[in-house]
Amino acid sequence: MTVTPSAATTDGPAAPCAPEDVRRVACVGTGVIGGGWAAHFLARGYDVTAWDPAPDAAVRLRRLIAAAWPALEQLGLAEGASQDRLTVTSTLEEAVADAQFVQESAPEKLDLKRDLLARLDAATPAGTVIASSTSGYPMTDMQTEAADPGRLVVGHPFNPPYLIPLVEVVGGVRTAPAAVDWAARFYAVAGKSVITMEREVPGFIANRLQEALWREALHMVANGEATVAEIDASITEGPGLRWAVMGPMLTFALAGGEGGMAHMLDHFGPSLTSPWTRLEAPELDRALYDAVVAGCEEAADGRSIADLVAERDRGVIDVLRATGRLPRSAEEAAR
Amino acid sequence: MTVTPSAATTDGPAAPCAPEDVRRVACVGTGVIGGGWAAHFLARGYDVTAWDPAPDAAVRLRRLIAAAWPALEQLGLAEGASQDRLTVTSTLEEAVADAQFVQESAPEKLDLKRDLLARLDAATPAGTVIASSTSGYPMTDMQTEAADPGRLVVGHPFNPPYLIPLVEVVGGVRTAPAAVDWAARFYAVAGKSVITMEREVPGFIANRLQEALWREALHMVANGEATVAEIDASITEGPGLRWAVMGPMLTFALAGGEGGMAHMLDHFGPSLTSPWTRLEAPELDRALYDAVVAGCEEAADGRSIADLVAERDRGVIDVLRATGRLPRSAEEAAR
Repeated sequence: MTVTPSAATTDGPAAPCAPEDVRRVACVGTGVIGGGWAAHFLARGYDVTAWDPAPDAAVRLRRLIAAAWPALEQLGLAEGASQDRLTVTSTLEEAVADAQFVQESAPEKLDLKRDLLARLDAATPAGTVIASSTSGYPMTDMQTEAADPGRLVVGHPFNPPYLIPLVEVVGGVRTAPAAVDWAARFYAVAGKSVITMEREVPGFIANRLQEALWREALHMVANGEATVAEIDASITEGPGLRWAVMGPMLTFALAGGEGGMAHMLDHFGPSLTSPWTRLEAPELDRALYDAVVAGCEEAADGRSIADLVAERDRGVIDVLRATGRLPRSAEEAAR
Repeated sequence: MTVTPSAATTDGPAAPCAPEDVRRVACVGTGVIGGGWAAHFLARGYDVTAWDPAPDAAVRLRRLIAAAWPALEQLGLAEGASQDRLTVTSTLEEAVADAQFVQESAPEKLDLKRDLLARLDAATPAGTVIASSTSGYPMTDMQTEAADPGRLVVGHPFNPPYLIPLVEVVGGVRTAPAAVDWAARFYAVAGKSVITMEREVPGFIANRLQEALWREALHMVANGEATVAEIDASITEGPGLRWAVMGPMLTFALAGGEGGMAHMLDHFGPSLTSPWTRLEAPELDRALYDAVVAGCEEAADGRSIADLVAERDRGVIDVLRATGRLPRSAEEAAR
């Protein structure tokens, strides 16, 4: 990722302040996601202005933040962080009037997003980057009505934004590359873990993965193949424990034993034609085989299979302990 | 689950010993999964006999167990547990001759599984339950060649079997219900977390879910939409942190705010028609809507949304700490 903090380009936003210098963040839309963002930014020491059209939005937002605060205290608040630095405004325009960054978290309706982003663009100081929390709409489809689409980016978080580090950052065809870089840098400064995507894909990365899982789960419920409780337990007692530690690709590489991902694909490749999900697999041709094997080697970054196994084992044991599935120490286990 | 530990039925196995009385376990096939099972059973204090046709199988198996042993010591070994209680035999027949439970973990090839299970059935003492680690074949398809198919069950583990608690237990059409119950009880005694399925579905539950995710990931790699490293990071920094704590259904219920799963479905139901994955969703008709909402309420088991949010937050913070993403204490964070 190339970061150009305050580069004003002819087709991009006017120079915003440097990501490190941001003090004032606006959160527009304060439901579960927007409220979670507000809690996150407050905990990181920002001044937060917030607006939401719902009549009881202020009460609900303050309740959400108060409920999250003990968790945020455990995470460690930034110096000066306070719930008192939240200002709930009565208009959208007031919320963004002095904002150095805007996070939009409105309901997932395309027309609404289009109009709202245009309104935000009109009301926000020139040069300030505006990010959308959209779960899956490409910015290209949302930035159509804005006068300055160059500063509009997707900054897709995961619930709750104050705890789950990931933010996926991607621009639309009319977004200035500098705005994408600025947003990625800002989120990193604000304590998030950033993936910057080179191109738009509906649902981005993580939502495509969890949406596939979710749809398969819905099929199983619809067909009476598994209950909601069984689906949840099958993940928390199974693959979920690994996925907190190691992603699905490297995890599967370890199923190949000392032969790693290549051996795994040799062994389980034929299963891609099995009816183990309603999702048809791509053809495992040479190019895909090589891309997956090379990608795993790159991700392993010099760690041997034995290293990765040891790392996974340590991680899973820590997660088992942390989530109360194991005694915290061997001494307790011996009791 | 109804457990009938030693019930001999006319169509079932001859009375096996009670699950609690098992001392001798046979592991047939000792690759990553079979070797992981051997490590698990040794750590739980069983005598383990093992056989695998590969010429260097004994060396590799002992190496795998030695590598796993430090992790198993951390988990807490059962009294008397020792790597010395492993006997690698030179024939399949020797491995199972005195076994009180057999775990088959051969490569994922249907013909091979069919023949092997028939051979195991012929060589194993009458009444001893034989379980297959198959990743997805229904037992109905694998038990076709065995003289006593009634004692053949699926006991599907997750890699590594010595760390990931889940085992999915399910019988085929010719499996005696008592054998399914016995296996479920035995695995629980042996320290596993068991889901007993009422009916066969290819891939069972968790593999259907992770196979959907895996296939979507392969599509993304094939199309150049995401790299292997991005796919892994999108899970470990995102949904994977939640899934160690709370399954995908309850996790999504919390995206609905105080309205829970019903509100989530109202809000995100339309996304099921979005191209956020290659997997087509089922129609979200009234029956499915009601089943998902009721299932989440049942799984919540009296916990309010606020309770679940607090539980998730505590769990994710513990997982963040355990996996080194956060300082271990607020004091460290303040430094």
